[in-house]
Amino acid sequence: MGMLLLVLDLAGTFVFALSGASAGFKRRLDLFGVLVLSFVAGNFGGIARDLLIGAVPPAAIRDWRYLAISLLAGAITFYRYSAIDRVRSPVLVFDGAGLALFAVSGTHKALVSGLDPIMAALLGMLTGIGGGMARDVLLAEVPTVLRSELYAVAALAGAAVVVVGYMLRQPATPVILAGAVLCFGLRLMAIRRGWQLPIAGEPERSSAEETRGEARR
Amino acid sequence: MGMLLLVLDLAGTFVFALSGASAGFKRRLDLFGVLVLSFVAGNFGGIARDLLIGAVPPAAIRDWRYLAISLLAGAITFYRYSAIDRVRSPVLVFDGAGLALFAVSGTHKALVSGLDPIMAALLGMLTGIGGGMARDVLLAEVPTVLRSELYAVAALAGAAVVVVGYMLRQPATPVILAGAVLCFGLRLMAIRRGWQLPIAGEPERSSAEETRGEARR
Amino acid sequence: MGMLLLVLDLAGTFVFALSGASAGFKRRLDLFGVLVLSFVAGNFGGIARDLLIGAVPPAAIRDWRYLAISLLAGAITFYRYSAIDRVRSPVLVFDGAGLALFAVSGTHKALVSGLDPIMAALLGMLTGIGGGMARDVLLAEVPTVLRSELYAVAALAGAAVVVVGYMLRQPATPVILAGAVLCFGLRLMAIRRGWQLPIAGEPERSSAEETRGEARR
Repeated sequence: MGMLLLVLDLAGTFVFALSGASAGFKRRLDLFGVLVLSFVAGNFGGIARDLLIGAVPPAAIRDWRYLAISLLAGAITFYRYSAIDRVRSPVLVFDGAGLALFAVSGTHKALVSGLDPIMAALLGMLTGIGGGMARDVLLAEVPTVLRSELYAVAALAGAAVVVVGYMLRQPATPVILAGAVLCFGLRLMAIRRGWQLPIAGEPERSSAEETRGEARR
Repeated sequence: MGMLLLVLDLAGTFVFALSGASAGFKRRLDLFGVLVLSFVAGNFGGIARDLLIGAVPPAAIRDWRYLAISLLAGAITFYRYSAIDRVRSPVLVFDGAGLALFAVSGTHKALVSGLDPIMAALLGMLTGIGGGMARDVLLAEVPTVLRSELYAVAALAGAAVVVVGYMLRQPATPVILAGAVLCFGLRLMAIRRGWQLPIAGEPERSSAEETRGEARR
Repeated sequence: MGMLLLVLDLAGTFVFALSGASAGFKRRLDLFGVLVLSFVAGNFGGIARDLLIGAVPPAAIRDWRYLAISLLAGAITFYRYSAIDRVRSPVLVFDGAGLALFAVSGTHKALVSGLDPIMAALLGMLTGIGGGMARDVLLAEVPTVLRSELYAVAALAGAAVVVVGYMLRQPATPVILAGAVLCFGLRLMAIRRGWQLPIAGEPERSSAEETRGEARR
């Protein structure tokens, strides 16, 4: 299972790194900035989880393959942006796959490190959404995961499956796969059908500028 | 004393979580975003302190009660925002109480972990102000604690009392209470009388937009 | 060599703290805000490195001199801003020196802690650029290091020298000095000649406002 997890983990890192690099490209960062955003988007969630459970140095720092795959995604985006831009919908699908895998593998890692089940599920979710949050903070934007779409909830659902399976002492591999499939499925449905969580306040959404203005105290 | 500290700590988490949830609500985040801001505002200061002194996993991750109380505050804010908005002044008072407690308990924890007195006071202050700073960063705003009001200084004063008491080998409980009372009193006075630290540059304050514009290099 | 490294490290902290304080002053923070930005800009890179390699509490938290030198820089900036503003070009030079030293000393520290060579070079670079990134995030701006100038690449070049010297088992002092000189030289040349990395997308740079608008999804 270790090998399977690693392969899927690197695939998740790659697609998240693509999302970071694309966001940086749109903001017209330089090459270095695009590569930094690749690495941050692909690895920050896992790094934060490892720091919180005391697993230092974090896997993304200890193992050069996470760096290599992130830089590869960043370089492809920088030099072949039009190609990345064209496959936008596939990228969303891959991103959902990355989210699914990070959520379940992060939960599994936190459980094994001895965290209690609820916090392990939360750390799993953090693994899945942390990279995108850090990417948005570096771009001085409110993280999109806080604003819209059934993203974190899908991660949480996948994490919950892993936690329940662990508490019932089921074998890890099928449980992890089931959690990943549930998260991925929820995410795909949310994208296709536009599922959202309730938004704070009035039902109609004000323009971004308006919201910004009134929220600044 | 452990029990007293825990109760007050959770109360501090609750009021800070209210402040985070309110800020998220005003920016029209979705339910998940509001809950994340609750947790971050209520717990980030303590988590940062625990990471810096090597106490992993941090208490807020290890103990589910911090999460539960944060989510409760977030849910109340999301579904009963008008009620929260009406008690704004009481919330400011609670927030001052939370600051006072986080500052003294954070300082105490840092001293016990072997940090030298000055740095322990700083980590106590960080415990008190860290949550609000993280909340503002996630909302892509300059942390309010950096801009105005006698907030961090009140935390520092409370922390200093704990440090001095510790160095003079006084019993911990009265010293911690005295520090909390001093911090809380200073903060209340600052709110009532509008006490501020000197602001950089010209005495008159420009509008937020103006400042933003000219500062962007 | 320990003594030499410490002196140079504190000098680097001082000049980075000046840059943080100046940025805070321009945004009209209060005295506390300016001091916080001093400390963050001067020490965040080193703190992040120490957390990632498990060296807790980080040196900047354990040793009061880092705090003292940061506060000194902040106070000078706050009360004598016109003087700091006048020596802008010398500050750029000092900043290059700080970058050079942080990059090589951070790399050395990461190598000694057992990290593999490539990740050690990256952590060295992080030590050099982390403070400026945190400073910009707290001011709700996209970190300048992501946008322009040969800054991180200079740090990486210096780090690479240290890594290669370490792998060839050369004595540390001359290797560290050579790495610092290379980084410093590259940075000075980049400032003087306006060397830049390629920028994403169209060659002409749009105005900040325009970029912001279109990047907000």
